[in-house]
Amino acid sequence: MTRAFRTSFPEIEAYMRSCMSDSAHDAEHVYRVLNYALDIARHEGGADTERLAAACLLHDIGRREQFADPGVDHAICGAEKARNWLVGNGYSTGFADAVKSCIETHRFRSCSPPQSLEAKILFDADKLDVCGAVGVARTLFYKAHVAEPLYSMTEGGKVGDGADGEEPSFMQEYKFKLENVYGNFYTKRGEQLAAKRRDAARHFYDSLLAELRECFEGGALVIEENIL
Amino acid sequence: MTRAFRTSFPEIEAYMRSCMSDSAHDAEHVYRVLNYALDIARHEGGADTERLAAACLLHDIGRREQFADPGVDHAICGAEKARNWLVGNGYSTGFADAVKSCIETHRFRSCSPPQSLEAKILFDADKLDVCGAVGVARTLFYKAHVAEPLYSMTEGGKVGDGADGEEPSFMQEYKFKLENVYGNFYTKRGEQLAAKRRDAARHFYDSLLAELRECFEGGALVIEENIL
Repeated sequence: MTRAFRTSFPEIEAYMRSCMSDSAHDAEHVYRVLNYALDIARHEGGADTERLAAACLLHDIGRREQFADPGVDHAICGAEKARNWLVGNGYSTGFADAVKSCIETHRFRSCSPPQSLEAKILFDADKLDVCGAVGVARTLFYKAHVAEPLYSMTEGGKVGDGADGEEPSFMQEYKFKLENVYGNFYTKRGEQLAAKRRDAARHFYDSLLAELRECFEGGALVIEENIL
Repeated sequence: MTRAFRTSFPEIEAYMRSCMSDSAHDAEHVYRVLNYALDIARHEGGADTERLAAACLLHDIGRREQFADPGVDHAICGAEKARNWLVGNGYSTGFADAVKSCIETHRFRSCSPPQSLEAKILFDADKLDVCGAVGVARTLFYKAHVAEPLYSMTEGGKVGDGADGEEPSFMQEYKFKLENVYGNFYTKRGEQLAAKRRDAARHFYDSLLAELRECFEGGALVIEENIL
């Protein structure tokens, strides 16, 4: 039986939650992406919001598989899972295929760019959640989760800014990823929202580095003179 | 045998590291506190930097016991462990008692205020590490560690600002703790360093709340009109 027009979002939402390893945090990301995407769709016009909403809700359901085996690409795996679940739950193959192709191309580092308007909006919405203070907070949560530190010290005993070949840390993630996510949005609205968030992330990074350097420089003077 | 004057900091440092559950992160906090404290001591003058440095290195060695049993106060437990270790490793009882009393009173929520200049400096140095961007980053690491979320939603479907009786979250911790650590320092230098850091924390909190509210408000318009 193929379903009638209206999508059952509570049912898709329940399936999404059952796929999340850490439902409290991962699901909140999904809801933010959904809200960003619908906001972009309202500004851009012309998107199929049912396909888009389903793709947003299901875009990260392959994360658990990727975490268990880093060789797995969560976008490819999640797209396949989403298609199978949708077809198995009575959605049309047209709907399931459209959702699948949005999910396949949502990844920031993906080689295959998004094609449909819905796929472009999902891509931008997911990227928006790496911007600004929210992106900083998510990255710090992630670093704690994988037991990586806030910063590393250089050989000269200075707090590293993350730009050189240092150990993995929040500072390094900022310089290599967070700092560089503000360009190349597919939608005008996505680009505008990202631009508004840029200063908050930069301000946090600059303050963090300045505080840490002041801390270690202030003490180092005394350590050299009095203790060592 | 009672040791001669000069303290063996590498030995104390090795003992500190052996007490840390999560050496990468906890030990970095200890080094920052040591550096803040020595900087404050340089500006204030008159402190015994050997007692102070030993107290800084050992101030959190009771954390593991408190984590295993929240009824344990890590300041009391750590003070006792530090005294025992110092006496057992040849330091004078005068030195060990002075270090013990610094550690006993370093806790922010403690009922017994610090008495000696060294105890006051340790207290201020430890509190400085809750200020600014560093305090924000440490709190986010901690929230991830205890699996508490960034924010919670109010019953009206709005992102909570943390000020009301909401679930534990980063936002709540900011409103109840981080926002209120800038007063009541014992030293002038501690107060100055804290004041310099205040804006960075406030800016991050304000940006985070604004981004989250904009995200959910933007999407909610479309969800109400088109999907539910």
